[in-house]
Amino acid sequence: MRDLQTIANGALAAKQAMARLGTNAKNRALEAIADTLEHNVRQILAANSEDLEHAQHAGLNAGLIDRLRLTPERISGIAEGVRQVAALNDPIGEVLWMKTRPNGLRIGQKRVPMGVIGIIFEARPNVTVDAAALCFKAGSACILRSGKEAFHSSLCLADLMRGALEQCGLPADAINLVEDTSRETATRMMRLNGYLDVLIPRGGAGLIRAVVENATVPVIETGTGNCHIYVDASADLEKAAAILKNAKCQRISVCNAAESLLVHQSAAEAFLPLAAQALAPDHVRLHGCERTRAILGASVLPATEDDYAKEYLDYEISVKVVDSLDEAIAHINRYNTGHSECIVTESYAAAEQFLNEVDAAAVYANASTRFTDGFEFGFGAEIGISTQKLHARGPMGLEALTSTKYIIYGSGQIR
Amino acid sequence: MRDLQTIANGALAAKQAMARLGTNAKNRALEAIADTLEHNVRQILAANSEDLEHAQHAGLNAGLIDRLRLTPERISGIAEGVRQVAALNDPIGEVLWMKTRPNGLRIGQKRVPMGVIGIIFEARPNVTVDAAALCFKAGSACILRSGKEAFHSSLCLADLMRGALEQCGLPADAINLVEDTSRETATRMMRLNGYLDVLIPRGGAGLIRAVVENATVPVIETGTGNCHIYVDASADLEKAAAILKNAKCQRISVCNAAESLLVHQSAAEAFLPLAAQALAPDHVRLHGCERTRAILGASVLPATEDDYAKEYLDYEISVKVVDSLDEAIAHINRYNTGHSECIVTESYAAAEQFLNEVDAAAVYANASTRFTDGFEFGFGAEIGISTQKLHARGPMGLEALTSTKYIIYGSGQIR
Repeated sequence: MRDLQTIANGALAAKQAMARLGTNAKNRALEAIADTLEHNVRQILAANSEDLEHAQHAGLNAGLIDRLRLTPERISGIAEGVRQVAALNDPIGEVLWMKTRPNGLRIGQKRVPMGVIGIIFEARPNVTVDAAALCFKAGSACILRSGKEAFHSSLCLADLMRGALEQCGLPADAINLVEDTSRETATRMMRLNGYLDVLIPRGGAGLIRAVVENATVPVIETGTGNCHIYVDASADLEKAAAILKNAKCQRISVCNAAESLLVHQSAAEAFLPLAAQALAPDHVRLHGCERTRAILGASVLPATEDDYAKEYLDYEISVKVVDSLDEAIAHINRYNTGHSECIVTESYAAAEQFLNEVDAAAVYANASTRFTDGFEFGFGAEIGISTQKLHARGPMGLEALTSTKYIIYGSGQIR
Repeated sequence: MRDLQTIANGALAAKQAMARLGTNAKNRALEAIADTLEHNVRQILAANSEDLEHAQHAGLNAGLIDRLRLTPERISGIAEGVRQVAALNDPIGEVLWMKTRPNGLRIGQKRVPMGVIGIIFEARPNVTVDAAALCFKAGSACILRSGKEAFHSSLCLADLMRGALEQCGLPADAINLVEDTSRETATRMMRLNGYLDVLIPRGGAGLIRAVVENATVPVIETGTGNCHIYVDASADLEKAAAILKNAKCQRISVCNAAESLLVHQSAAEAFLPLAAQALAPDHVRLHGCERTRAILGASVLPATEDDYAKEYLDYEISVKVVDSLDEAIAHINRYNTGHSECIVTESYAAAEQFLNEVDAAAVYANASTRFTDGFEFGFGAEIGISTQKLHARGPMGLEALTSTKYIIYGSGQIR
């Protein structure tokens, strides 16, 4: 077993080699990784069955076990994902701008690899490969830390990727998995200053909070989403019902799903019954304010402060009737998590005010919040959705995994 | 006295108003601030003399007392700085790109204010105004924390700025100074998650370390600089001596000053005597490797590991003869702090390799490291020099104080 310090030293050495790799060499290595995964399906499934056995023993729920499970088809899908990363444009080396200063210095800003990227994730073995491939294409070494439920699968996948790199004559240490799953080691990883250039947690609110509180390395906070749909006075109510249904029900477990509905008072009488009807086939539980309950009846549970702040990730939603657009914006800016927010309106002024004043990574007029996604945004890939304002905000593609440096060409200039 | 929580609440409320301010309103407020400072010179000097008295009592050194001291000329200079910030282009509102997706969604990335910016600085009262003006122009509220040596001056300046905002009909709470200087309050400020969108320490290595270790809010790490001048085999030795002298001696106390000289073995015999001669008028102490001492004699102190890692900020420099460009790059990547690094060379290949492979915010061919500066880079202002890779790297101007959000125009799209 390699301990964390050995891994960190290895990653630091590998980042130098990574910084020198051209696009063709990186793409060849990614293709080799994809091939290796497809050639070793049996080995991967064997490791995965260990994890599945532990999971069943530990009584994990069916949803979690399903996310943990690999199949030949899923492994093909993972390999295909690596080939798609190989096909993406290489962001490294682009000179974003270059100008000549009055003293003759030529100054340019060039996109360069981050260096060493840390990623902590939970019980999804596929993230091992997705994350490693993106970091690799972005020219960085990575240190991954898998949730213990997926550990055997993740370790097998990491070992296969490392082997593929070696076969290409590249340092295996460009891809690393932390080889124990203790909380102590995870905390030490969050404090690898001087080794990790950035740490990205991918998982639930608990994991993200632990990273934000314990990390001393730079962190990109990703993802919880208390997303709102606000139905304005002038909304097209059919559109609003369709957007609400999609944002709430199409996939309940994701961060861009809607968790709260706000309705302008003048649209409430007409819209709330439509909303209830749109959500009924999925048996969505409503937690409403008094005015909502007056319209829809006592089958709507009373909404508490807690409900307005909650990311249900379930067939539940909070509902509030508001007096005005201003109140809607204030409510959202108070309770949201900076993820995705939508107004449904036919009013130009209302749409502009909402898009301007709501403070979130993605603000929508007349479209489902479910579009907040790297692929939907056309980035070709996604490492997560940032809900902080530093470095990257919203869906993060390859560019979010890069840094820049200034390159300066002189001819003896001094100050 | 307003306690930290009161200040944080006020800043959070003010950021909403700030986000709505147009460029003209911001510029008018900045002009009003500049005028107020100039009209209240006597009040500022009175507060400053309290700080100076304490400083003399406490036996602070002359350099520190000089940095603390305000004069009518310096106050004019500070006001002039505010007017220059008013004259800068407003970065807020720019749509960096907008495209239409196949489903008809129009997605754009728009530059928006950060929200609330925290800045912790040391004994330089002028930073109170410089930092507040930049944050204000960037559309954000700020919470400033002054070193206790400059506290009375900083508080007076902050109060004057707050008054000027109120006179313009704007919320005073857009600019805040933490009103006690205890370490406990500083630590609480570093953990104002949900209030501070970013925290920037401006000061020495101790302050920066304390922030990196204690902060749970996102941080931009600024500035220590162990900067190297590498004189290559093919260097123009006159140019090299001039660059070395400028980078080491022009201003010793700044982060972009040179702290270490590396010389290719084939240039060592010819260059080291020139280097010693260039540094002699300033009585620079050399800490050299064995080969350096063999050439320059025993007046050169022996260099230790510590010397290679040291940011002297004084008339001292470490000197090492290296076998090759590769060794120089490896040495720099091992000991540097990611700030500014320079190669002096007439070789195209050597320059390109150095610029590609040295890992630092600014890499120079044939120019002094002293140019790493927001003004020298043409940014018109500077809030500090980032030595991390996230968000901003190198000199930070107004844009580094902004974030982005995605604005999405739909017509009912769902997934």
